[in-house]
Amino acid sequence: MMKTIEATGNAEGDETEIRALMTAWARALEARDVDGLAAAYAPDIVLYDVKPPFRIDGVAAYRKVWEDCLPYFPKCFRSRHDGIEVRVSGDVAFAFGLHKVEPLDDEPWAGDSWIRVTVCLQRIDGAWRVVHEHVSIPFDPLSGQVVPIKDVQP
Amino acid sequence: MMKTIEATGNAEGDETEIRALMTAWARALEARDVDGLAAAYAPDIVLYDVKPPFRIDGVAAYRKVWEDCLPYFPKCFRSRHDGIEVRVSGDVAFAFGLHKVEPLDDEPWAGDSWIRVTVCLQRIDGAWRVVHEHVSIPFDPLSGQVVPIKDVQP
Repeated sequence: MMKTIEATGNAEGDETEIRALMTAWARALEARDVDGLAAAYAPDIVLYDVKPPFRIDGVAAYRKVWEDCLPYFPKCFRSRHDGIEVRVSGDVAFAFGLHKVEPLDDEPWAGDSWIRVTVCLQRIDGAWRVVHEHVSIPFDPLSGQVVPIKDVQP
Repeated sequence: MMKTIEATGNAEGDETEIRALMTAWARALEARDVDGLAAAYAPDIVLYDVKPPFRIDGVAAYRKVWEDCLPYFPKCFRSRHDGIEVRVSGDVAFAFGLHKVEPLDDEPWAGDSWIRVTVCLQRIDGAWRVVHEHVSIPFDPLSGQVVPIKDVQP
């Protein structure tokens, strides 16, 4: 069945908007700005984080994840995305690629791995919002140990 | 800017179609049918698998993942999805929830964890195709060891 639907915006402008949203998130992370990190997240965001619990529900819980873990981050760091691909149509979009936290001094940092990121968005009341995010590192099924992602051309 | 775009189908019918596609995948897995597993995957699928490499590109490589790992699966098993949510608009959709392989006899099975699944789709030449899939289990950042997902109400 063919059906004409109304959609606000256009795919190219939407992709630009979504990339800007991810860049703003990266800058908020560097600034340890939890309001900024949560700004584009929907009230009912479902996060699949790198660590347990396996599922985190709602933007208040999402904020708490960051409040709890930011004290363990390096003193100064850069938040980098790499190879992000974006697909958008109508009011639904997704983006995926890699993210890394890079200390700006020689501080050793336990999180020295790229992290795989999949971000799923909906346009809600005219603004793009993250409704689901999935972040992970692969693991070795024999040892159950995660395998850090190092060999990526930045 | 308001722009009218043409979209085939309707959101409700599309969700039904996407759920049917995931069910067909589950049945293909139980049948160890690699053609069936790959049937709805786009030629340029990007898979973030539970195990390395961190990124698998293309449907031929996706098929090989299954060909290589199916011999390690239990003799008889059920492939179950749980709590799948689907969002669709125009020609882009995503779905997320849990998946598990359940042996049908008492065979011990190393994969005894629910797996978090995010499936991202596009309508290509009129048919829904998976263009990106992200599957993972969370890990303990202190030990680097994965934490199996057990406590889910099925």
